[in-house]
Amino acid sequence: MTPLEPVANTTKLELAETITAAAAAFPTFAAATPASRATMLDAVADAIEDAVDELVPLAIEESHLTHTRLTGEVKRTTFQLRTFSAALREGQYLEAIIETAAAAGPLGPTPDLRRMLLPVGPVAIYAASNFPFAFSVAGGDTASALAAGCPVVLKAHPGHPQLSRRTAEIVTKALDSAGAPAGTFGIVHGYDVGVDLLSDERITGGSFTGSIPGGRALFDIANARPTPIPFYAEMGSINPVFVTSAAVHSRGHAIATDYIASFTLGVGQFCTKPGVLFLPSGHGLRERLVSAAAEVAPTPMLTAGIADRFGHLVDELGRQPGVDTLVAGSAVEGGWSPSLLITDADALRADPAALLEERFGPTSLIVEYQHESELAALAGLFGGNLTATVHGEESDLGSLGPLIDAVTGKAGRVLWNGWPTGVTVSPAMQHGGPYPATAAALHTSVGTTAIRRWLRPVCYQSMPQRLLPPALRDANELGLPRRVDGVLTSEAMA
Amino acid sequence: MTPLEPVANTTKLELAETITAAAAAFPTFAAATPASRATMLDAVADAIEDAVDELVPLAIEESHLTHTRLTGEVKRTTFQLRTFSAALREGQYLEAIIETAAAAGPLGPTPDLRRMLLPVGPVAIYAASNFPFAFSVAGGDTASALAAGCPVVLKAHPGHPQLSRRTAEIVTKALDSAGAPAGTFGIVHGYDVGVDLLSDERITGGSFTGSIPGGRALFDIANARPTPIPFYAEMGSINPVFVTSAAVHSRGHAIATDYIASFTLGVGQFCTKPGVLFLPSGHGLRERLVSAAAEVAPTPMLTAGIADRFGHLVDELGRQPGVDTLVAGSAVEGGWSPSLLITDADALRADPAALLEERFGPTSLIVEYQHESELAALAGLFGGNLTATVHGEESDLGSLGPLIDAVTGKAGRVLWNGWPTGVTVSPAMQHGGPYPATAAALHTSVGTTAIRRWLRPVCYQSMPQRLLPPALRDANELGLPRRVDGVLTSEAMA
Repeated sequence: MTPLEPVANTTKLELAETITAAAAAFPTFAAATPASRATMLDAVADAIEDAVDELVPLAIEESHLTHTRLTGEVKRTTFQLRTFSAALREGQYLEAIIETAAAAGPLGPTPDLRRMLLPVGPVAIYAASNFPFAFSVAGGDTASALAAGCPVVLKAHPGHPQLSRRTAEIVTKALDSAGAPAGTFGIVHGYDVGVDLLSDERITGGSFTGSIPGGRALFDIANARPTPIPFYAEMGSINPVFVTSAAVHSRGHAIATDYIASFTLGVGQFCTKPGVLFLPSGHGLRERLVSAAAEVAPTPMLTAGIADRFGHLVDELGRQPGVDTLVAGSAVEGGWSPSLLITDADALRADPAALLEERFGPTSLIVEYQHESELAALAGLFGGNLTATVHGEESDLGSLGPLIDAVTGKAGRVLWNGWPTGVTVSPAMQHGGPYPATAAALHTSVGTTAIRRWLRPVCYQSMPQRLLPPALRDANELGLPRRVDGVLTSEAMA
Repeated sequence: MTPLEPVANTTKLELAETITAAAAAFPTFAAATPASRATMLDAVADAIEDAVDELVPLAIEESHLTHTRLTGEVKRTTFQLRTFSAALREGQYLEAIIETAAAAGPLGPTPDLRRMLLPVGPVAIYAASNFPFAFSVAGGDTASALAAGCPVVLKAHPGHPQLSRRTAEIVTKALDSAGAPAGTFGIVHGYDVGVDLLSDERITGGSFTGSIPGGRALFDIANARPTPIPFYAEMGSINPVFVTSAAVHSRGHAIATDYIASFTLGVGQFCTKPGVLFLPSGHGLRERLVSAAAEVAPTPMLTAGIADRFGHLVDELGRQPGVDTLVAGSAVEGGWSPSLLITDADALRADPAALLEERFGPTSLIVEYQHESELAALAGLFGGNLTATVHGEESDLGSLGPLIDAVTGKAGRVLWNGWPTGVTVSPAMQHGGPYPATAAALHTSVGTTAIRRWLRPVCYQSMPQRLLPPALRDANELGLPRRVDGVLTSEAMA
């Protein structure tokens, strides 16, 4: 295959033009009805679907992920776009509240007040490496921002520049054909450009998926601006899994097999990879764990740089006091087979910071514990996580309350007898957790409530009908669900 | 009257003990049912009401505000507490979403997912000077945080230390008698202690009402922590008011009178004080403005320091090119009578930063403009504001769209033919706006949605009934409104 051409870094002038276009697009794009923005999102989903045979090969070449995985990821990406278009058509996301004037409220007369959420303005989105579709150019962050009515300036991930360039062309063309104003979507390439983008005063919000150092650096820039802006950084997560003795007894073999499958899925390059597994000492699963890991072939990682760093991180962990290597991964060019390490609860307590670092790639650490009563305290050693999982049996339910409480304090999603990889796209999902999992534990980057990150409330007081946004007029010409004097209704006001 | 005793600064040891107590209280307080926390808030409201005859005289002595104003403010404060207790009993604030497992979702099988909002942890609240009740010890920030289930460490404002101390005693005793765990509420005094408080890693969020430099300094501390936390700073707002020629023609005299009343209300010490009034040149209202301002007597401000700074700020504005003094305020000990300054649109365009600084106290700046078509562009000179107001007539409605759009981009609340002072406490209210009005334009500090600042979403996946929080169990034993497979219901699941 002919090597792909590199994509040139965006110049400062091009960046300025892109931001100017986004700022110019904002008023028109923001004023579009939710239903018309839904049509635009559907157009993007259709166009990506139509281009799947062109895009997936590009993605395979740049990311080294499999055809099956990437084809599935395109489905997820178009599903995300269509989920947001459905949310726009439903309209509840606007949180419209109308309170008519009252002559005798509890504190005296009150005026007519009408509140709804409005888009914040043009936003900067930093694409991730590990989901070249679902968390990249047309991924969930872009879909949620466009749904909200915010033009997007997308900073491409250098791991898949040609795919990014081509996806951006498709997104731009689809938005254009569906009637979005020019500048609604723009893409930029290059490290310095990414920093300059976030510093531009016309940018009103941002999001990021990637490493802790990268996310924190951008978070700090966003907050140090003369005008700080919200920055939703999804960064690092270890996703601990706690297994009880009863669970080992009843289905230890399956747990071992599924654990290996989960932490090696996508070559371990998932934010939700189970990085630590707690097993009762004497679990008797070593042989099964080793043989299951040995069955996973060495596989190229997203980039050579990521594979290099991964090797160093695993070496470093293997040298920690009390940590043994159960399975040593072997390298191929730009990739690895799984590494599995093992330690005990005492070693973890002795240096939790060293042992509980995120290691992006196909490795995980088993921690053997003595008593289930230790687990809640061990959970307390963790920082914030996207997920935490408990495997147990009916007989454990009476004693696991403290562990569930402890992990709920540390994670955005708490699983029972499952595996954290595989994130359902739905309104009940929470993908975000206490720092450093995200710098925005109050928000999610997956599921329809992700739209809230790009919306701010505005209240109109005693405003004439003609000057109100259509969503708040008596006639309810858009047919939106609204809370009118305390009652949820989609009807016009009498 | 005997001078009040000063309140000693909290020591580092006392601060540590207060935070330790708040952290210890958190699990129990967070796990209390919404209805039981509602009882606790009601107990606080009752206790403050019972103590009104003791608290108001203390407040008068420390704040120099009037008996009428402070008695009204106590009513507002207890109303706020009871509004949150009603929201707790209603339960919608938990945003409970339940999705049962599906064998064939659009992307394959999906697990049982149950999401709700949970309190973030102990929080730090910095009291304001200008509302010794409603934005202080037992004010809206405290009420919303306690409602959410977050223990509060309250940093007292030095402007009313004895009132703060005494109110805190009443709050603590009421919470205790209603069954809240010890440590649910604590108070600290002193500047350095306020900084140390926010740096403590056990504190998980914070809020502030006050000046831009103070709010920004705390915001920066919150974000620079190893573990950054959300910090809701409400800081400075100019609250521009735009008056059309038609409005002047139809009711100019009343507008002038009401404007003077609004910017001098509470000695101009409101976050929502109208700091700039745009009038068409040739408005003919100078005489009325001057005479109405002259009727307002010199009045002591909250503190001598505030009065001093106010004098300097007004002097500084009066010396700006193109600014004339229409009414020169006169000083009394620790206070002022109103100052009214006047300029034109050209001078404003020449140096918007100098003219559009917030000046806390009884002063405002009139800006004379030539054509109504200039107003939208003039609105663009402003930074973020809590409010923006337009006074117009039926005949203006066809032409005011661009101005309404421009001010909506700059403010959290947009008023028609009203005055921004006087903030209704209700679900539709938005008290918060783009920076520097607040460092949290996505949130409000007034109204029931203020509770969102202290809550983070958690999703439970495939969790057994017994380990779920009661709010998410099938039986719905708390009778909460929940969205179950897309349908809003308060029923138990079949």
